[in-house]
Amino acid sequence: MTTPAAKPLEPSPRVLLGPGPSNVHPRVLSALGMPLVGHLDPEFVSLMDEMQGMLRQVFRTENPLTLAVSGTGSAGMEAVVVNVIEPGDKMLVCVNGVFGGRMVDVAQRAGAEVTAIERPWGEVFDPQEVEDAIKKVGPKLVGIVHAETSTGAHQPVQEIARIAHDHGAMIAIDTVTSLAGVPVEIDAWDIDAVYSGTQKCLSCPPGLAPVSFGPRAIEAIKNRKSKVQSWYLDMTMIGRYWGSDRFYHHTAPINMNFALREALALVLEEGLDARFARHALNARALATGLKAMGIDYVTAEGHRLPQLNCVSIPEGVDDLAVRKRLLHDWNVEIGGGLGDLKGRAWRIGLMGYGSRRESVTLVLAALETCLRDSGVSIEPGAALAAAAEVYAEATTATASA
Amino acid sequence: MTTPAAKPLEPSPRVLLGPGPSNVHPRVLSALGMPLVGHLDPEFVSLMDEMQGMLRQVFRTENPLTLAVSGTGSAGMEAVVVNVIEPGDKMLVCVNGVFGGRMVDVAQRAGAEVTAIERPWGEVFDPQEVEDAIKKVGPKLVGIVHAETSTGAHQPVQEIARIAHDHGAMIAIDTVTSLAGVPVEIDAWDIDAVYSGTQKCLSCPPGLAPVSFGPRAIEAIKNRKSKVQSWYLDMTMIGRYWGSDRFYHHTAPINMNFALREALALVLEEGLDARFARHALNARALATGLKAMGIDYVTAEGHRLPQLNCVSIPEGVDDLAVRKRLLHDWNVEIGGGLGDLKGRAWRIGLMGYGSRRESVTLVLAALETCLRDSGVSIEPGAALAAAAEVYAEATTATASA
Repeated sequence: MTTPAAKPLEPSPRVLLGPGPSNVHPRVLSALGMPLVGHLDPEFVSLMDEMQGMLRQVFRTENPLTLAVSGTGSAGMEAVVVNVIEPGDKMLVCVNGVFGGRMVDVAQRAGAEVTAIERPWGEVFDPQEVEDAIKKVGPKLVGIVHAETSTGAHQPVQEIARIAHDHGAMIAIDTVTSLAGVPVEIDAWDIDAVYSGTQKCLSCPPGLAPVSFGPRAIEAIKNRKSKVQSWYLDMTMIGRYWGSDRFYHHTAPINMNFALREALALVLEEGLDARFARHALNARALATGLKAMGIDYVTAEGHRLPQLNCVSIPEGVDDLAVRKRLLHDWNVEIGGGLGDLKGRAWRIGLMGYGSRRESVTLVLAALETCLRDSGVSIEPGAALAAAAEVYAEATTATASA
Repeated sequence: MTTPAAKPLEPSPRVLLGPGPSNVHPRVLSALGMPLVGHLDPEFVSLMDEMQGMLRQVFRTENPLTLAVSGTGSAGMEAVVVNVIEPGDKMLVCVNGVFGGRMVDVAQRAGAEVTAIERPWGEVFDPQEVEDAIKKVGPKLVGIVHAETSTGAHQPVQEIARIAHDHGAMIAIDTVTSLAGVPVEIDAWDIDAVYSGTQKCLSCPPGLAPVSFGPRAIEAIKNRKSKVQSWYLDMTMIGRYWGSDRFYHHTAPINMNFALREALALVLEEGLDARFARHALNARALATGLKAMGIDYVTAEGHRLPQLNCVSIPEGVDDLAVRKRLLHDWNVEIGGGLGDLKGRAWRIGLMGYGSRRESVTLVLAALETCLRDSGVSIEPGAALAAAAEVYAEATTATASA
């Protein structure tokens, strides 16, 4: 029953400019492919300690319970919800895209009595409407998406956190797409629980979910009357493995942790502020170029994530045909719309390692060709010229600063 | 807030001869470190199809719902339990080690009414006692560990599967440590649900959990009255992503799937029967060598897994000191005892890529030095000579066959 040798794996050299995964720095790939050590090896244990320190820096928190859950960002969402929520608890979820909706589903499965408030996709919530809902519902936990991957909306959360606490509620935020791309200030904003993913602005392959729990959440977990419904995501047990006990829970994904450690090191070597500025600059160049082609954003002005640009597909242009061609002719992946935005929007990601001038230039040039071939009237080269001007201005500003 | 460059990651070249993770073939590491593609990229989608075919071959099943869950083996256990079980369902769990015990915990958290039957650690269950319990309990599902990683016990399950079905129950088995090391015959044994891990005899890093669900389990999932409590592990939704729908669920761990595909290819290139024979031969050599040093097995004779050798620590030998020295002086990792066997047993794994003559030779030689230094009386070189004889006999037998 021997089978012939499999074909060698030769993935095409994709330029990943969709909603994630993003491209990964060679140092991260190299760390990923290193020979592994055991999950209780002193070398791995000290790597876990180092990673916890790095994750705290990136989340800007002192929370002891800060670590990487052994699953993707959605496992992080579930870990936050099932640990903080007990059956019958009230939870308020703010829904303005796919991931808010997912949080409702996850919370209901955890036995929460969920109230959802909604905003049209692409908009953000106003603190006042959240306060009204909190007053009405009296939730234990408010869940809100800081960076809605389905719309590119950037939700301010600091004021909402204050309001939640004023009314005795906790707040959990989704930073899957925001972490390391725009400021995330867990302690300064007084966030009780947060989760993220590795495959967006951290530019590590998907597979781990950084999480952090603050003092109120820890207290809630300690005072639970029921066991956490998920054994795999029970933070108390996972915390005992990451903590000084080193109590065996499950076999950690060693190589994925190697990769995340390296990705975090790259983030900290660059510096968070420099990284945010880089994301902002490249997004500005992209937006200026897109505007020159007559392409508009779906997301409300002033609330756009630089790392995820959700834009309207011009009238008469075939969504799928363009995306297929981008992939086939240029190896460029951009994302389609989800849910309400299916067929109506593209999501162009400039995340982490992928947020570079060459990415902006390539996607603008390729899109211009596709759109002109689709009959959209565009002045040749206008998008690239407009983007180039943004970079030139930025260079001048830096030089004169 | 830029920090200086992190030290390069340089894991020591461990020889992983514990209960897993095992060492990984260079081809698998190389696949792991390849530049990634998107999770809906046509190339990834066809890789998923290829992997499903390979997983079916390795599990020896035709089950359509056969895929890799995006978590470690314990996530696979939870995926099986929470999908098949609904709150209030009766489940019978056979416990003769850590992982049977874990299944009880997972099932209780899923709301099952659990009955556990127990056997001393290192022993296996007799079909008769399982039948007696099934008759008494009338469970929906019987859970049993095919290869108990904490004791090295190899549990026959075919007869128990027949009995379960005779009494209208389903059977789920844990093959985390057995898959690709000893025969696992999902269809021939008529198993309803099975999970495994990647980091044992598949010799892929930890991080994914191969699972397969047969027709009865699928039917039970279809007829559920309640939602699966875990969104992340909801097999119906995950199946729609792996199936022809390609319905987005979560972002698959791309690189871990690259690695598992390569690991599966290696298994099939070698051939399952040849792989089982290799595991058996190396375990025989190890056992013979250990016997020459006076070291006995904890596990009942006739029910020992060749890939996980659970042996008694000789009187007067310091468990931790020896394991530390093996790691420090030879880069060799072996496992300590868990639970009841803590401090009393070692677990020596010869799994997948690690099941090789050089592993056997190295661990015997290093152990001999450690034991002699601990005052155990051993004839110098006797263990290595005994092992060498096993290999010589095997060569003769092959040559004359």
